[in-house]
Amino acid sequence: MMLRRLTAAAVALTAFIALGAPVHAAPPAGLKQKVDAWVAANQRAIVTELVELLAIPNAAADRENIRKNAIRLREMLTRRGLTAEILETTGNPLVWGELKVPGATRTILLYAHYDGQPVDPKAWKQASPFTPILRAGKMEAGAADLTDLATRATFDADQRIYARSASDDKSPIVAVVAALDALKANGLRPSSNIRVILDGEEEASSPSLVPAIAKYRDKLTADAIFILDGPLHPSERPTIVFGARGLLTLQLTVFGPKVPLHSGHYGNWVPNPAMRLAQLLASMKAEDGTVLVKGFNEGLPPLSAEEQAILDGVPDDVAALQALYGIAGPERPGLKLQEALQYPSLNIRGLSSAFVGAESRTIIPATATAEIDVRLVKETTAARLKELVVAHIRAQGWHVVTTDPDDATRARYQKIVKIESGPETNGFRTSPLLPISKQVVASLQDVFGAPPVQIRTSGGTVPIAPFIETLGFPAISLTTVNFDNNQHGENENLRLGHFFRAITTMAALLTM
Amino acid sequence: MMLRRLTAAAVALTAFIALGAPVHAAPPAGLKQKVDAWVAANQRAIVTELVELLAIPNAAADRENIRKNAIRLREMLTRRGLTAEILETTGNPLVWGELKVPGATRTILLYAHYDGQPVDPKAWKQASPFTPILRAGKMEAGAADLTDLATRATFDADQRIYARSASDDKSPIVAVVAALDALKANGLRPSSNIRVILDGEEEASSPSLVPAIAKYRDKLTADAIFILDGPLHPSERPTIVFGARGLLTLQLTVFGPKVPLHSGHYGNWVPNPAMRLAQLLASMKAEDGTVLVKGFNEGLPPLSAEEQAILDGVPDDVAALQALYGIAGPERPGLKLQEALQYPSLNIRGLSSAFVGAESRTIIPATATAEIDVRLVKETTAARLKELVVAHIRAQGWHVVTTDPDDATRARYQKIVKIESGPETNGFRTSPLLPISKQVVASLQDVFGAPPVQIRTSGGTVPIAPFIETLGFPAISLTTVNFDNNQHGENENLRLGHFFRAITTMAALLTM
Repeated sequence: MMLRRLTAAAVALTAFIALGAPVHAAPPAGLKQKVDAWVAANQRAIVTELVELLAIPNAAADRENIRKNAIRLREMLTRRGLTAEILETTGNPLVWGELKVPGATRTILLYAHYDGQPVDPKAWKQASPFTPILRAGKMEAGAADLTDLATRATFDADQRIYARSASDDKSPIVAVVAALDALKANGLRPSSNIRVILDGEEEASSPSLVPAIAKYRDKLTADAIFILDGPLHPSERPTIVFGARGLLTLQLTVFGPKVPLHSGHYGNWVPNPAMRLAQLLASMKAEDGTVLVKGFNEGLPPLSAEEQAILDGVPDDVAALQALYGIAGPERPGLKLQEALQYPSLNIRGLSSAFVGAESRTIIPATATAEIDVRLVKETTAARLKELVVAHIRAQGWHVVTTDPDDATRARYQKIVKIESGPETNGFRTSPLLPISKQVVASLQDVFGAPPVQIRTSGGTVPIAPFIETLGFPAISLTTVNFDNNQHGENENLRLGHFFRAITTMAALLTM
Repeated sequence: MMLRRLTAAAVALTAFIALGAPVHAAPPAGLKQKVDAWVAANQRAIVTELVELLAIPNAAADRENIRKNAIRLREMLTRRGLTAEILETTGNPLVWGELKVPGATRTILLYAHYDGQPVDPKAWKQASPFTPILRAGKMEAGAADLTDLATRATFDADQRIYARSASDDKSPIVAVVAALDALKANGLRPSSNIRVILDGEEEASSPSLVPAIAKYRDKLTADAIFILDGPLHPSERPTIVFGARGLLTLQLTVFGPKVPLHSGHYGNWVPNPAMRLAQLLASMKAEDGTVLVKGFNEGLPPLSAEEQAILDGVPDDVAALQALYGIAGPERPGLKLQEALQYPSLNIRGLSSAFVGAESRTIIPATATAEIDVRLVKETTAARLKELVVAHIRAQGWHVVTTDPDDATRARYQKIVKIESGPETNGFRTSPLLPISKQVVASLQDVFGAPPVQIRTSGGTVPIAPFIETLGFPAISLTTVNFDNNQHGENENLRLGHFFRAITTMAALLTM
């Protein structure tokens, strides 16, 4: 036991030296063993608390049940000694809690959300998405409903709970309170002051979060926010995410003749908007994937050797991904997945012009439309990239409009494109080289005895990015649930081995 | 009268000299005046014959009524002294007739079709598409139903009959028999042996025509076939069409990931099929409209000065067309419409990938599809142009498949496109420089006192092209109906001035 502890500490120390970080306060000796033992002895109670929470429906639009969730969560926090409140907002209520720790010199804010994606109950292979069931394994692999979720005393790691929000995002909340219980039962306490903020409309884009800052800034201030949401890296190793790409969407509509015309009578003479759209789109990206929009990738700081090492350390199984998705290789030959995510992307997410398939007819279409999404990184804001894309389009000789062209405009310009943009979310990134970043990495490494996966920038966009931006202090995500959790779809599930390990992860975070 | 006749003859003679044609046998002196006078005196009977024919429903799928049409048509031909028969085919019956003219050294075959486009009666502004009504003018301009179609003695040129097939294509049939009546009443007779073939499924692509040749070749042989179908050139001048473009359709499907993927998690890394399709399409056509597929325009003989003069003689009102269609100019700056139609065209008639508009989502689509149509001219066959397009696609580095790719194919090739082609129709063209071509031009010029519009190649595709190709003798179209006839749509109509003039046109053809 002592030897193991020493070894873990040595590994951790090596890591810190490698990262050039200051020596940190390590989590309490034997934390993993202590928490694991407590979890093993209390599985029934932990699972019951989760299952009871999952039984309260939580679509963001279901105001009545959302409030029931909030009341239950406040009670769960209060029971652990937190000062807890329901904070009213312009939308669904936030649940807030605070635990002051004597002597703590740091405050961490833990974020999770208690609402879930809307459900289509008929698509679920169980009575209701809000009547959790326990399966022996994956439903897709034929694992049956064990029917004894309510009564069994212990659970296996491979068993899964099927219910809406089992993974996204109620289990991390239960993991936090279970970690507090586990620490207390072992005579331990958090090393930071803890604040908790639970969002009730994340799946509806969290519209009330930023306005809530103005009202509740004092309650939300911290040294760092930890976002407890999302699946582990497919390698199943503990995963820390330091940033997420933002999102800008653009709709481009190119105009041909006012009405679809006979392709025989006018083909070769009346300009074809679908061909012109294809030419415009092709002008934006080289065959090797390089975005040709001037300035698109400018302003990104070069990666330091330490950051490059972090990217290289992500154990992506590229061959497995390629086989799974049926592609022969990445867009740009040799490009690593993690490197691709450090840059803004330009993606055509939809195309439409007239008809394809059985409905197609021999016409010159009247219009052709492309939907584009641009994923942003911290340095490339939505406003700037939109400007660059529009400038690129103009440089190709296009007349840009924001509403359908009138006759005079049509008569004057050969190439007319309407550009409409959707809601914008900037990207964010907390440097993995900050002390707080290195602290959490070190703590997980210390507790689990191996380095966590560090994702410098996650490819996807999180709706709370503006909240993070407005708060203005470092934000770091800790993900815990199984990758194959059917998040957002039907038959969402949580592998219990992941859930139990999440409790240890939370204990490592609380005591770092 | 004599002076007028001499003037017309002089104009005609000048035209022949200009065209380098041999002197021809002119239509009988004063033909137009004689026919016009007879028509004026017999409007009631002529219109009655048309209206009674229009009252018999004629969708190709309506077998029972189709046969009623055929029986009526046989009777109409018999009444004019033709030997007439119903020819049974693998589909709807053909109606055939023959009039042998003593001393005639030439036989002309007149083609028209008696079936009509399917109807949606609810969309028509009258009780039924098969209950013809008479309006004072254009319905779209507010012209009311005159309600006295059945009883009035005379008709004005601007009045219109609204009914299915009024224009397309029953009125040319009635014009032919009326022209025979008019000649007879004036003591005149046709200068050619006349054969008539009336198609009962042209709007269903005439599937039985080519097979019928094997069975009835003796009855169909002629020196030339005249296709009596279609509207006048928008200039409203008598119009002769010497050819039509053919049609080849291709569907291109480009494959990305097996399932749509999150554009954040994989954007910049997983190849995007919509972008690759855009790049492929853009490779096919230069911005100035030049088709970049190697060999696409090869094999076309250069236009002689005489042919160029025919193209230049078409009075296209380009400014009006551009204003009508809301375009600032043709695809290739300065390209004349008639010139554009002499070349094969490459047209994108449809595009689709994932979703656009309200349904769009942030994904990398799994596939992207383009529907292409290629209009063919006589020298560029469907088989050859398909080969060239496929060769072009391969030359861009694409792996071409004809069914969805399997895993091994996906793993091996970066760029995979599935190419499927639809039914093919070759183009046809009768040289406007043939004696028979010059003969009909001269005859119309002689009768109407002004040169007809000569269309060397019409842009659209006619389903009877294979019939023409198999018959193997010259084919020439004579169009007669108003351009704004709502052909194929609801509220199809026929302007009576055009109809009455068509009788004179047919008389000119019969006596050339």
